[in-house]
Amino acid sequence: MVTVAAVLIGDEILSGEVEETNSRVLVETLRATGASLGRIVIIPDDPDEIAREVRHCSDAYEHVVTSGGVGPTHDDRTMEGVAKAFGRPIVRDPAIATIIKRILKDGANEAALTMADVPEGSHLIDAGAYPVVAYRNIYILPGIPEIFREKLGYLRERFSDAPTHVGRLFLGCYESVIATELAAISRERLGVTIGSYPRLSGEYRVQITVKSQDVAAVEHALELLRERLPAEHLLRVCPPEVSSKDDQAR
Amino acid sequence: MVTVAAVLIGDEILSGEVEETNSRVLVETLRATGASLGRIVIIPDDPDEIAREVRHCSDAYEHVVTSGGVGPTHDDRTMEGVAKAFGRPIVRDPAIATIIKRILKDGANEAALTMADVPEGSHLIDAGAYPVVAYRNIYILPGIPEIFREKLGYLRERFSDAPTHVGRLFLGCYESVIATELAAISRERLGVTIGSYPRLSGEYRVQITVKSQDVAAVEHALELLRERLPAEHLLRVCPPEVSSKDDQAR
Repeated sequence: MVTVAAVLIGDEILSGEVEETNSRVLVETLRATGASLGRIVIIPDDPDEIAREVRHCSDAYEHVVTSGGVGPTHDDRTMEGVAKAFGRPIVRDPAIATIIKRILKDGANEAALTMADVPEGSHLIDAGAYPVVAYRNIYILPGIPEIFREKLGYLRERFSDAPTHVGRLFLGCYESVIATELAAISRERLGVTIGSYPRLSGEYRVQITVKSQDVAAVEHALELLRERLPAEHLLRVCPPEVSSKDDQAR
Repeated sequence: MVTVAAVLIGDEILSGEVEETNSRVLVETLRATGASLGRIVIIPDDPDEIAREVRHCSDAYEHVVTSGGVGPTHDDRTMEGVAKAFGRPIVRDPAIATIIKRILKDGANEAALTMADVPEGSHLIDAGAYPVVAYRNIYILPGIPEIFREKLGYLRERFSDAPTHVGRLFLGCYESVIATELAAISRERLGVTIGSYPRLSGEYRVQITVKSQDVAAVEHALELLRERLPAEHLLRVCPPEVSSKDDQAR
């Protein structure tokens, strides 16, 4: 399984000045690629915190996506945080400096050119109007929602993995009625992940999800659950389908 | 400043099965209390990850709020994670067991009663229909949005702090035009936090926020910024007001 972690950076998100929307875009995009999103962290524009978090994520996950803190002002500290995480200096990337000069012309002052300052050893992976660099397995994306969405779209194929299949059962009882049997089945090494999600109101009280990249394993587990969970509470069973954002409204 | 960290727990959020809404409730609630939200983390139902994260947050912040993973099924691992973080055993809380028996009556089977299993040393802080415990400075809340919102509301006063005042300046230029001056002003130890937030379109290109619990410090910094930022780009200045969810739409 391809694993991804996300580090969203910005005081303004935590203080509520700006409504955070990039995490939703990230969840939807990764869901469509089949990759597994292992962690989302929202932290302030603090180089030490950024360093600590990106280092952990870079070591523990295959890919890391960051969002925010890459502009020209004093509160844009992401590059400094990433550099600090790996003990690397910040250096000016000539290719990015050239892009900035081309776009901003007379406006390419020293502050604007600081946007070309990246951790030594970074790679320019997108030389468009908003250049993007990666350091190691860390993709450093701008936080502005329109640009974040566009840049993440370009990265999609790097995260692609075999699709995950999801089957579902809907029941009309409390979770506690089925918890013991569900735990027993989930211990049977069926090669699937079984989740249980209660709801306070609506047509069902609990949704059971069965997930795996192996569709036959999902089918087998669904069959077992259908046999062993109490028939009087079972409302419906949905056969496996590929997990994608389209079934999110369910 | 009262600091708070949030740990939102659930595979279903990261996979996109369920749309995450508790973080927004948390940001809004804390914004209204004056407390500073220092970190939001979304992690899977994994006891080791839960243990690592709540331990870090409990040590580094004044209060920690968790959401999710407290039901009766095999994928509800939050109590186990918190216990593990501090090397404590899980014990059955008799008061919670009594509540479960009173509410579920004949349905209070062993699985239901596992919801009374908490880290040794926990405190029952809400003995309502959905009991809530705290361990150390960690408030362990259910993930179901309606209940999370209600329980967090009860906790509000524990997080209350002096209100933060925010003044704003709106400019019509790129951030890079003002970045150098802004950095200089932000180094002047004015007792405020200065943020800079660019936008791609709309009536302004960059919003500068000036924040502090000391309203006079905000007024002084706003005056300095008004004098020193280029007048030809300044669109308007908004005097300090108390930060609350009402100004989020700005």
